[in-house]
Amino acid sequence: MLNAAAPIGVFDSGVGGLTVLRALRTELPHESFIYLGDTARLPYGTKSPETVVRYAQQAAEALVARGIKALVVACNTASATALPALQLRFDDLPVIGVVEPGARAAVAASRSGRIAVLATEGTVRGGAYQQSILTLRPEAQVQAVACQLFVALAEEGWVDGAVAEAAARRYLEPLLSAPPDQRPDVIVLGCTHFPVLRPVITALAGNAVQIVDSAATTARCVSELLQQRGLLNTSSAPGEVRFLATDGLLRFTTVGVRFLGTAISAADVELIDL
Amino acid sequence: MLNAAAPIGVFDSGVGGLTVLRALRTELPHESFIYLGDTARLPYGTKSPETVVRYAQQAAEALVARGIKALVVACNTASATALPALQLRFDDLPVIGVVEPGARAAVAASRSGRIAVLATEGTVRGGAYQQSILTLRPEAQVQAVACQLFVALAEEGWVDGAVAEAAARRYLEPLLSAPPDQRPDVIVLGCTHFPVLRPVITALAGNAVQIVDSAATTARCVSELLQQRGLLNTSSAPGEVRFLATDGLLRFTTVGVRFLGTAISAADVELIDL
Repeated sequence: MLNAAAPIGVFDSGVGGLTVLRALRTELPHESFIYLGDTARLPYGTKSPETVVRYAQQAAEALVARGIKALVVACNTASATALPALQLRFDDLPVIGVVEPGARAAVAASRSGRIAVLATEGTVRGGAYQQSILTLRPEAQVQAVACQLFVALAEEGWVDGAVAEAAARRYLEPLLSAPPDQRPDVIVLGCTHFPVLRPVITALAGNAVQIVDSAATTARCVSELLQQRGLLNTSSAPGEVRFLATDGLLRFTTVGVRFLGTAISAADVELIDL
Repeated sequence: MLNAAAPIGVFDSGVGGLTVLRALRTELPHESFIYLGDTARLPYGTKSPETVVRYAQQAAEALVARGIKALVVACNTASATALPALQLRFDDLPVIGVVEPGARAAVAASRSGRIAVLATEGTVRGGAYQQSILTLRPEAQVQAVACQLFVALAEEGWVDGAVAEAAARRYLEPLLSAPPDQRPDVIVLGCTHFPVLRPVITALAGNAVQIVDSAATTARCVSELLQQRGLLNTSSAPGEVRFLATDGLLRFTTVGVRFLGTAISAADVELIDL
């Protein structure tokens, strides 16, 4: 049923998932993508699991209706909460989340097994990162910290300066002030908004701590899965990207550029209702 | 049709409007209230006008279906955007927003006529505060500043300390570093989330600047309107309060207490779908 020439669907609660789209385009330059940002209903990170599952199913249906060959859930909160429900509902479609790839990247990078996860309230509460890491490395010590303000800072574009530094200090102080043998050696950015704050987090954490995010590992995971299923696009032409948003086209383009790294034309964004 | 013994409906995008409910209960202790927080879809402050109008109409309908005698739109963004649409749709129901009372409080407090409005992106963009103030005092000089991060700070409970101070400094610096004869003498807190940040803003602005919010003036405005329409509750028993939320009952009670000033029992909050 699935067509190798079809686009890959990428879904996020807003613009943060564009960091994942960016990694996907680098890894898979010949694939086309449809990116859906549920900007009318963001943020997902403070919503209940039931609501996140419902919203994720609606978004997935909109993308499936547009003929995608695989679905990437680029939102950590939705990956942590709704992935099993989506995999059950769309059972012949490859559905890939960002939590398991993020956990894999963290485990690969950690020598001590002490791993800190920075994420939204919903992701932390759901425990998916903690579980994924412990499945891969049962003796790991995982500390998850809800950093809700990082979302607002990333959206506001305040990714450096006094406010970002003070916020990072407040969230990370308890981790970094621990005795050396209890300090994490890896910090996972468990929300797609957080990579834009990486310089501030790195400056505070120092060189002894590696910062990993799930964008690159998710892209590799998608590439491997498409290869296994014989779904890689064999065209040598560069792939195309279309954007769907549920609200605020202007905001989508102005804020989105920070996450995608390249400009988004308003003409390429379609407003849809879920 | 309207019944003086019926409750007053209060609607907000989330928990910020509880600061208005608090003022209403102080002003009108014998009235009962139904408070609806659209917590599933907050924040409204970054959404498009069309979406805010649609959400506000759905919320108003849910409250009207529960037999309210008046509707208070406690959300500044919804007041600034959706009030005319709501007044048109529910034409025999008193519908009161917070923008006009806030503008009145600002004009009454200002000697110089230089007024700064701190609000969400949506409220600033819509220009309702600026218009309301200029209608009351045509020679006023109004500066509106979008302070989106204040919403996240208030929700996170970071209402003092280094992060709140740095954020307030960044937003207010351009206003407060102006020459004395161009500096505002009144700052309006044009978002119901912002009153919890009043001490930080006051510390920065100094004694020469008065900080006003719309909660108390809105409550007086509601009281006057009910009196004019013969809709004041004549019972001498204390009024009751019920809460409706569209998501996250636990979060509603834990975050809500900061805005209401008294505890909210989860048993008093009903989950509804709009």
